[in-house]
Amino acid sequence: MDITDKYVDNRPINRSTAITRTNVQFMNDILGWEFPVLDHGFVRVIDYMGDDKAIENAARISYGAGTRKKTETQGLINYLMKHNHTSPFEMCEIKLHVKLPIFVARQWVRHRTASINEYSSRYSVLQEEFHIPKSEDIKAQSTTNKQGRGEMLDGTLSSEIRHKIESNSQSSYDLYKWLVSDDVNMTRELARISLPSNIYTQWIWKTNLHNLLHFIMLRNDSHAQKEIRDYAQLIEWIVMGWVPLTWYSYYIHKKQTISFSAHEVLIIQHALSMPSLDENDKPCWAESFSMREWKEFVKKIKRIRIGN
Amino acid sequence: MDITDKYVDNRPINRSTAITRTNVQFMNDILGWEFPVLDHGFVRVIDYMGDDKAIENAARISYGAGTRKKTETQGLINYLMKHNHTSPFEMCEIKLHVKLPIFVARQWVRHRTASINEYSSRYSVLQEEFHIPKSEDIKAQSTTNKQGRGEMLDGTLSSEIRHKIESNSQSSYDLYKWLVSDDVNMTRELARISLPSNIYTQWIWKTNLHNLLHFIMLRNDSHAQKEIRDYAQLIEWIVMGWVPLTWYSYYIHKKQTISFSAHEVLIIQHALSMPSLDENDKPCWAESFSMREWKEFVKKIKRIRIGN
Amino acid sequence: MDITDKYVDNRPINRSTAITRTNVQFMNDILGWEFPVLDHGFVRVIDYMGDDKAIENAARISYGAGTRKKTETQGLINYLMKHNHTSPFEMCEIKLHVKLPIFVARQWVRHRTASINEYSSRYSVLQEEFHIPKSEDIKAQSTTNKQGRGEMLDGTLSSEIRHKIESNSQSSYDLYKWLVSDDVNMTRELARISLPSNIYTQWIWKTNLHNLLHFIMLRNDSHAQKEIRDYAQLIEWIVMGWVPLTWYSYYIHKKQTISFSAHEVLIIQHALSMPSLDENDKPCWAESFSMREWKEFVKKIKRIRIGN
Amino acid sequence: MDITDKYVDNRPINRSTAITRTNVQFMNDILGWEFPVLDHGFVRVIDYMGDDKAIENAARISYGAGTRKKTETQGLINYLMKHNHTSPFEMCEIKLHVKLPIFVARQWVRHRTASINEYSSRYSVLQEEFHIPKSEDIKAQSTTNKQGRGEMLDGTLSSEIRHKIESNSQSSYDLYKWLVSDDVNMTRELARISLPSNIYTQWIWKTNLHNLLHFIMLRNDSHAQKEIRDYAQLIEWIVMGWVPLTWYSYYIHKKQTISFSAHEVLIIQHALSMPSLDENDKPCWAESFSMREWKEFVKKIKRIRIGN
Repeated sequence: MDITDKYVDNRPINRSTAITRTNVQFMNDILGWEFPVLDHGFVRVIDYMGDDKAIENAARISYGAGTRKKTETQGLINYLMKHNHTSPFEMCEIKLHVKLPIFVARQWVRHRTASINEYSSRYSVLQEEFHIPKSEDIKAQSTTNKQGRGEMLDGTLSSEIRHKIESNSQSSYDLYKWLVSDDVNMTRELARISLPSNIYTQWIWKTNLHNLLHFIMLRNDSHAQKEIRDYAQLIEWIVMGWVPLTWYSYYIHKKQTISFSAHEVLIIQHALSMPSLDENDKPCWAESFSMREWKEFVKKIKRIRIGN
Repeated sequence: MDITDKYVDNRPINRSTAITRTNVQFMNDILGWEFPVLDHGFVRVIDYMGDDKAIENAARISYGAGTRKKTETQGLINYLMKHNHTSPFEMCEIKLHVKLPIFVARQWVRHRTASINEYSSRYSVLQEEFHIPKSEDIKAQSTTNKQGRGEMLDGTLSSEIRHKIESNSQSSYDLYKWLVSDDVNMTRELARISLPSNIYTQWIWKTNLHNLLHFIMLRNDSHAQKEIRDYAQLIEWIVMGWVPLTWYSYYIHKKQTISFSAHEVLIIQHALSMPSLDENDKPCWAESFSMREWKEFVKKIKRIRIGN
Repeated sequence: MDITDKYVDNRPINRSTAITRTNVQFMNDILGWEFPVLDHGFVRVIDYMGDDKAIENAARISYGAGTRKKTETQGLINYLMKHNHTSPFEMCEIKLHVKLPIFVARQWVRHRTASINEYSSRYSVLQEEFHIPKSEDIKAQSTTNKQGRGEMLDGTLSSEIRHKIESNSQSSYDLYKWLVSDDVNMTRELARISLPSNIYTQWIWKTNLHNLLHFIMLRNDSHAQKEIRDYAQLIEWIVMGWVPLTWYSYYIHKKQTISFSAHEVLIIQHALSMPSLDENDKPCWAESFSMREWKEFVKKIKRIRIGN
Repeated sequence: MDITDKYVDNRPINRSTAITRTNVQFMNDILGWEFPVLDHGFVRVIDYMGDDKAIENAARISYGAGTRKKTETQGLINYLMKHNHTSPFEMCEIKLHVKLPIFVARQWVRHRTASINEYSSRYSVLQEEFHIPKSEDIKAQSTTNKQGRGEMLDGTLSSEIRHKIESNSQSSYDLYKWLVSDDVNMTRELARISLPSNIYTQWIWKTNLHNLLHFIMLRNDSHAQKEIRDYAQLIEWIVMGWVPLTWYSYYIHKKQTISFSAHEVLIIQHALSMPSLDENDKPCWAESFSMREWKEFVKKIKRIRIGN
């Protein structure tokens, strides 16, 4: 296609505003590499769009003069993160190639704001690759957390469990292999229904950074199942290399944050002998705070009032 | 809560605009009934919002005077359907309780614009209920359609297949039962990974009518897997009773429609001896059309021109 | 449509599971009433689906045995709210008819997970109704908050401003009236472009309760523009009547919550003389807490460690 | 960040699968250029992800062996487009910087599956730039299409209209300028409400290719308002340069397609003297078709049957 200085209806194009594409060296370096997860799984970065600077640029369009005081990219990104201005983080996008067991895929797919192309077992035959948990991951049902894991099981028992999961995977796959063999030639969409959910599948998964951080928040977390957490942990590591300022801000202002209910804050106020707390008089136990930080803290803690 | 004639800041409420809730007798009648699907599955309507009239009302707000000519609800709904004015159909909502095999759930969940609460096998133990296909549904891989079914398999072979799928389900469940037993007490989130995808799960699924019709279009279709088609067929039957005018319109203007590419329309034009086709002169072979329908047809078929 | 005991392929329907529709007296009472907002606007509830109990039911399907300990609906809803289990709140839906100035509509529409049918000024002529701010709402640009309001302006100046906004609305509408008059008969879609954004429009807006609470959180907030806050405040009042247990939970566990960054929690720990804080030894200043609440509080505050 | 051959827990990374980023020369060339639209508007490409090949790659992951027969990228993309396999098209993403009048923005924003950062007139002062329609675009209300334009208005009248729209814009802006001046210093969020919707705003807009084609389908169409059509037309031109195979496929299989209802197809069948039409006997008027195309056409046209 030929682009002269005038396009379509002969109007002049302003080329002085040309830019170049965002590029992140770390991402360019690792593009396509298979980072292993679990026994047969992996995560590969296929492509990406945007970087920390792209988030800043989008925010400056949006908030204009309001952002002028935040001269540093890090400061601006912290401001956006703290105040839940989420739309600039949607301006970055990532596309991953992931190989994962079906029981992990079933949890992953609940994150709806993403695009997926999964390997189809209606068209194609699944490979004989199953996730067999390591002994150290075979644990008892938690007694305190209805959905979690408790203590490790006895070593001999773990070995027996591993062995039985392996046999079950093997015999299910033998049945599958027979069903799709030339002798039987059963339709693949039905042959697959006997395969257990520890068999591996793969997909291309594409999402924006805002939704990715939400995925990491929920899945690289002690309440998430260990197997999806392994994927989320690796992906968080990739995010650290891709958008380091955003990751830092997420870590400090989202992940490491504790929310106190109104009732709890009242207790803290009481213990700290409010309202004698003075935003202009920083006590010795707050020496690590600057005066600006101290004022912010006092303001925040005083926000809740009895009878409010 | 007490609502006097003045609310909040003492301003008068206009009660003359009071309305009553939409009610569809058919839906009220079947609320909660378990309609069986497959061997152990079902679909139950839990709740619904809106009806054909609600779609009309939303459209009249939107298109105002533009809709005045369509005096009948059916006429207006046909107009919306034909011209892809989809937003009024989003104004109806349905909530279903569905019991279904996991391999069906995996296809279903790809419809992202819906709310889901699924039975959690991290918290709770799954029941011993598996989908075992009927002999008549056990077919060969299609030779013409890479993702479909071909001919029925030989009767003896079918019996053998059924028997093997049943045994596999049984032995997988025996393993599962042992893993979650008091003796082993393995964490449930890991015990389940050996269960095949023909085991049943259940969920509450809520979506709007626009997305539901899209679901029905794709899933109650010869290209969809037979098992999810059974669910989609039942749900289409429910839609017929819920919003009959919308269903009729969907059926005529979406489902039963054929799209011709530009090249194909040129052939039709040629065969019909265009451009001698005259919108004011209806030929004998179009006697079933009114003059208005004939004009519309000629206009549509003449839309494509050689060299366009 | 006739439903015999057997449907479609002659299979028995289980009618013993029949239920009746959720009904909330408060909502049935106010259905369709115009609650006034601003000078000419209003909010009307057109329809709704679900109630507090419906949220509980969806959660119990999902978390099964895990929810058994929470015997009370309020307790279960608090648990869901605190732990960000958001999907059960998506199981309620509301449909509103709203009349609002265009500059409010422009902010509102940014909440993307909703269905909208807006009055079309391409089809129909807009009425002569403009929002003219009250004198008490005419304020200076805030000196501390780049997007907010500061002090009230001088009374005489406010009157002058009101008068000028009124004249501008009037003269713009005169132009519009002339453009769409029979004399000129200019196309409506272009005639409207001269109308200022304080003119009123109206729409049907439908969303689920999870997204509605997010809307209320952001818009019934001191950082939101006063005019959209008026709408959000009224809608929050409706939510209080519709799902009182959910509203209470939202208010205590979301709205009234304060998040402290890791750095701030360290200061609190320090001030409270950690680690001498003992979860088994409740001090006098925490007398309003039960022992369970005290343990939770200590656990939460100890979650952050230096060098973590 | 240092990436040795082993990452995190010392596991080997497979680097043999490294790839390079997708690059489209046309896009790299035009990055950032301002293509003019209307009197003061523009469209700039800020960034993009993926190309025709990326769509093919995603589809091959998904459909595996099913796609092997389509050896050519164009053939595969046509297959996806014709059969509404939309997910691979979501694998491309584009980010645009757009300057546009508010009345165009109000239509644009209805495409919900997109990320937006708009210039905020709460923070910043809007520039004095208004869209004044050209005389040739000032038309009468259509008599046949309730939402469209009819004949051009008389030249003298058009001049008068232009003049009045200009004066109205000017006087509204004078009021605005006074309100935000140092003398009055009224809060910006309220000062802006008197500005007409032909004033320009700008935003960053990011969406995927599937949704972008839907935008182009609806907005570069004779039923769309002329002003948004100008933007959609330019964006379609950019899509042609970015993903030429996909654009071609969209044009032939979506844009240039005509849908006939069941009733209309029956008429065509009748006129073509069905069922004498034979898929093995191509008549003279279909000489431009290959036998494969002829068979497909006959199959399609015979899909509808009387009494179906």
